[in-house]
Amino acid sequence: MKGLFITLEGPDGSGKTTQVAKIAEYLTQNKIDFIQTREPGGTRISDKIRSLILNPEHKEMHDLTEVLLYAASRAQHVHEKILPALEEGKVVLCDRFVDASLAYQGFGLGVGEEPVLQVNSIATSGLVPDRSYFIDVSPEVGRERMKARYGTASLDRIEQKDLSYHERVREGFQHIFANQEKRIHRVNGEQDPKTVFAEIVKDLDKLLANHKEK
Amino acid sequence: MKGLFITLEGPDGSGKTTQVAKIAEYLTQNKIDFIQTREPGGTRISDKIRSLILNPEHKEMHDLTEVLLYAASRAQHVHEKILPALEEGKVVLCDRFVDASLAYQGFGLGVGEEPVLQVNSIATSGLVPDRSYFIDVSPEVGRERMKARYGTASLDRIEQKDLSYHERVREGFQHIFANQEKRIHRVNGEQDPKTVFAEIVKDLDKLLANHKEK
Repeated sequence: MKGLFITLEGPDGSGKTTQVAKIAEYLTQNKIDFIQTREPGGTRISDKIRSLILNPEHKEMHDLTEVLLYAASRAQHVHEKILPALEEGKVVLCDRFVDASLAYQGFGLGVGEEPVLQVNSIATSGLVPDRSYFIDVSPEVGRERMKARYGTASLDRIEQKDLSYHERVREGFQHIFANQEKRIHRVNGEQDPKTVFAEIVKDLDKLLANHKEK
Repeated sequence: MKGLFITLEGPDGSGKTTQVAKIAEYLTQNKIDFIQTREPGGTRISDKIRSLILNPEHKEMHDLTEVLLYAASRAQHVHEKILPALEEGKVVLCDRFVDASLAYQGFGLGVGEEPVLQVNSIATSGLVPDRSYFIDVSPEVGRERMKARYGTASLDRIEQKDLSYHERVREGFQHIFANQEKRIHRVNGEQDPKTVFAEIVKDLDKLLANHKEK
């Protein structure tokens, strides 16, 4: 039996992390064998790379360095944690994956889609999610939610960037997702969290039914 | 005026670092504007990545993670330090570069030449050295020199690997260098350091003469 790889994508403040927790609760209630993880991070080595990337002191970090560090963190995560769980037939629920790198680095930083795709295809040995939920909110709404939650002072190096950057990121997400409608399910993240979750569960149930039949 | 990019390559214990110091002394005596640097490392961020890679505790590090971390460290090094110096017309003298990744990771770890080349071509934005000196010693001689210098206990995660790994690395270097005879100058590193240096200087003088004419 092969596992099921589900990712959640969306800008900061989209409520993505809340939805991951709700999905995890739902899987537990339904006695489905799963692991919950997140990027950047997910393993000891990935976490160390994550703190290097997000350190607000590293203002001189080159865009290509950032792309390669995210990919390095992901390579460790995929090979140490995600692939083994999928091979055991588990559901893997992951907060962010390659789409986030494409949107943030390929589009937000302007590195371009092609190099980010190439590097990540090597890092993941070609692994693609079975389903990705894209929780879509406008950059303004995302930013206001982040400020309300953390205050401006504690925003990390990525979150501190200006609004036009976050607009490019959103356009990036929309571009990526427009080309992959079969894999990606867009949900309007400006609705209340219960409505967002109900939309996800509707799709998720079908997915899980198919998964059990396999 | 464009700079001159010179790298030194060779296995651990080849005496490469001694030769870098001798070349630096020679350039100083000849009043040539240069910078001296090394990989992995060379900038603040690259150094932090370097210590992550070489930490002997990280035994679970996946080969692809290692490839991507070296490339990330290199991307920062190239864009923050090497390219700006070359644009100012300086000589850049660098202890190890992409060839080392090809030999150690592509061949030593067995990741393959192609992914390592792809990732590094993105990391360096296509930068290739003007001249690379390959200081060749057998794995046995290299290892004995390292042990004599540091003792077995202090060898780092890479140096601790077995002899067959170091043999694959040497074959890797020979394979890479066989295809690029114009760029690469092989020197027998089992000769005494003065003889090795004399061979390097003979070639270097021609290179510097051409460089001045430009």
